[in-house]
Amino acid sequence: MTHPLLDLAPLSAAHFASIEDRVARLLRTEQDVVVMQGEALLPLEGAIRATAGPGTTALNVITGPYGQTFGDWLRDCGATVVDLTVPFHTAVTAEQVRGALAEHPEIDFVSLVHAEAATGNTNPVAEIGEAVRAHGALFYLDAVASIGAEPVLPDAWGVDLCVIGAQKAMGGPAGVSAVSVSERAWARMAANLRAPRRSYLSLLDWKERWIDGGRTALLHAPAQLEMLALEACLERIEAVGPDAVMARHASAAAATRAGALALGGGLEPYVREAADAAPVATTLRAPAGTTAADLVARALAADPALPLAAGGGALAKEMIRVNHYGPDATPGAVRAALTALGAVLAEEGLTVDVAAALRAAGKAWR
Amino acid sequence: MTHPLLDLAPLSAAHFASIEDRVARLLRTEQDVVVMQGEALLPLEGAIRATAGPGTTALNVITGPYGQTFGDWLRDCGATVVDLTVPFHTAVTAEQVRGALAEHPEIDFVSLVHAEAATGNTNPVAEIGEAVRAHGALFYLDAVASIGAEPVLPDAWGVDLCVIGAQKAMGGPAGVSAVSVSERAWARMAANLRAPRRSYLSLLDWKERWIDGGRTALLHAPAQLEMLALEACLERIEAVGPDAVMARHASAAAATRAGALALGGGLEPYVREAADAAPVATTLRAPAGTTAADLVARALAADPALPLAAGGGALAKEMIRVNHYGPDATPGAVRAALTALGAVLAEEGLTVDVAAALRAAGKAWR
Repeated sequence: MTHPLLDLAPLSAAHFASIEDRVARLLRTEQDVVVMQGEALLPLEGAIRATAGPGTTALNVITGPYGQTFGDWLRDCGATVVDLTVPFHTAVTAEQVRGALAEHPEIDFVSLVHAEAATGNTNPVAEIGEAVRAHGALFYLDAVASIGAEPVLPDAWGVDLCVIGAQKAMGGPAGVSAVSVSERAWARMAANLRAPRRSYLSLLDWKERWIDGGRTALLHAPAQLEMLALEACLERIEAVGPDAVMARHASAAAATRAGALALGGGLEPYVREAADAAPVATTLRAPAGTTAADLVARALAADPALPLAAGGGALAKEMIRVNHYGPDATPGAVRAALTALGAVLAEEGLTVDVAAALRAAGKAWR
Repeated sequence: MTHPLLDLAPLSAAHFASIEDRVARLLRTEQDVVVMQGEALLPLEGAIRATAGPGTTALNVITGPYGQTFGDWLRDCGATVVDLTVPFHTAVTAEQVRGALAEHPEIDFVSLVHAEAATGNTNPVAEIGEAVRAHGALFYLDAVASIGAEPVLPDAWGVDLCVIGAQKAMGGPAGVSAVSVSERAWARMAANLRAPRRSYLSLLDWKERWIDGGRTALLHAPAQLEMLALEACLERIEAVGPDAVMARHASAAAATRAGALALGGGLEPYVREAADAAPVATTLRAPAGTTAADLVARALAADPALPLAAGGGALAKEMIRVNHYGPDATPGAVRAALTALGAVLAEEGLTVDVAAALRAAGKAWR
């Protein structure tokens, strides 16, 4: 009757709180950290619905699909939304954010995705945070695809709501996620009559019934296995050091980019500047005359374990994603991806040099 | 670097769908079943917010704390709520429901908790379902504490929204949960402009993007470990047969009730009629002059593994809960609970007969 995933002793409130504290250490934050019992979409949505309302003017930076989703939620809350959209092959600059803030002084909320695995870019949060802080707006950051792959420092950067999930560079579970909340973000929520209360979406419920109660009684039975997996991945990151995990991701991105360029056949990095490319995943532009989704499907048919995906929606035609994160942030995974892409491009009659790609990748691995 | 809870191959859409189908078989339903990625509160809240609005008149049956929560959500949605509250030491009758429906012919939604572990009662859903169907209202049932402990038959009973969780009698995980949805419930949601859409709370999102798409692509990364645990507990129930699992719970309830009566010392079943007592958990009334929370705390101090808890909130003074569900629906757990209660009552100077209690419990085990 025993099964490794069943009949575990209940997760205590103290144990749950200790996992939250571990997340806080990873984020080097003194803010409250709440581990939410759902995928990262839960705190991402919960944080927007808690803080935004008809009185809000939000600057919503769109560098990929998640930025679009945040704009939808903000409008749904009744907020006035100023969209700042940049091409997905680049990153937003602090200068662009400063410009938007100067043009719309009424902005009191800024939403930004740190890195988007779906488009492969990463944004300069530290500089943007300075601009947002100078303006006085609340700063909301989606760090799901950056945490573990590059530094995420809510306190140093003045982030008021920083959402993370463990399923990408942390190599952890997707079923629970976390948000750090500044004092002024809590105050904004408390003053927002439309903030979800007595709701699965509610951050305020966790503030009032969990944090303010000294974290002694959980609101409901937790997703225990996902919590234990989150703890295990935090332990693993602590054991080797977050810097080593981030270096692995930076190397994987550099190696993939260098390898793709050396491979030839018309394959190109999708994000034009290396500085704008996310360490979590590298996006590539399929050569003219080929279709990214077809190339990826053929590569995966040969080896389903490859960390490859086509871009989502309209990007499926032109974008190849190399998801070199978590357990795939390794030289082996990068080499396998480059070799497979070389094979399918050669089948298309394109001239590729797999050996050169692997040499370049090896050299770029720091 | 390997850990049993980390770096699993992703859960495929087909695998996810197969787990939903297994839940449907357990419920013997032809309705759509959605496994939601959160604790049962997620589909419980999501189903109410999706179907209720300012045009709704809801009959909300309150037989414990969950009924009170549902009333709060219904009012929050703008519904007119008719509360039908019965004392927590009893169950609601179909006659009472028929009376309320006759008195308020405008009722178009009925919410009911099948069994409440927190109060220990169970309600006659089959009979109530007949009355609700005859009236034409949508029927919403919280079967989290009944599934696995007693029959839950949404199709046979005309339940339009039946929510279950695996963490009680199923002996499974708490981090995912499920809801079966009838065609007319989907239609009610689709017509409800205020139903959550593009939201973690949204059932319609799963209808439109998962079910209607042939269940080929998940909306987001699932809580994989909780899903695998749900599958494992369903497999275990199928292996011994749901009837055997339900019989174990019925026996545990009968044995606890008989044992408590035979124990003496003034201990009494909280739910007065055995027919109204839930098979999932047995609530007991602490003897006059004692405090339930103190008795339970002392028993747990001696053995933290005992399936004992005090009642919640105002019930902490008078109610002892024996949570003989899942892995604790065994003669051993019932005997341990009775023995421990006998010991703490004896410490209070009360006259108890533990041997008689254990004999009565053994005899009542069917």
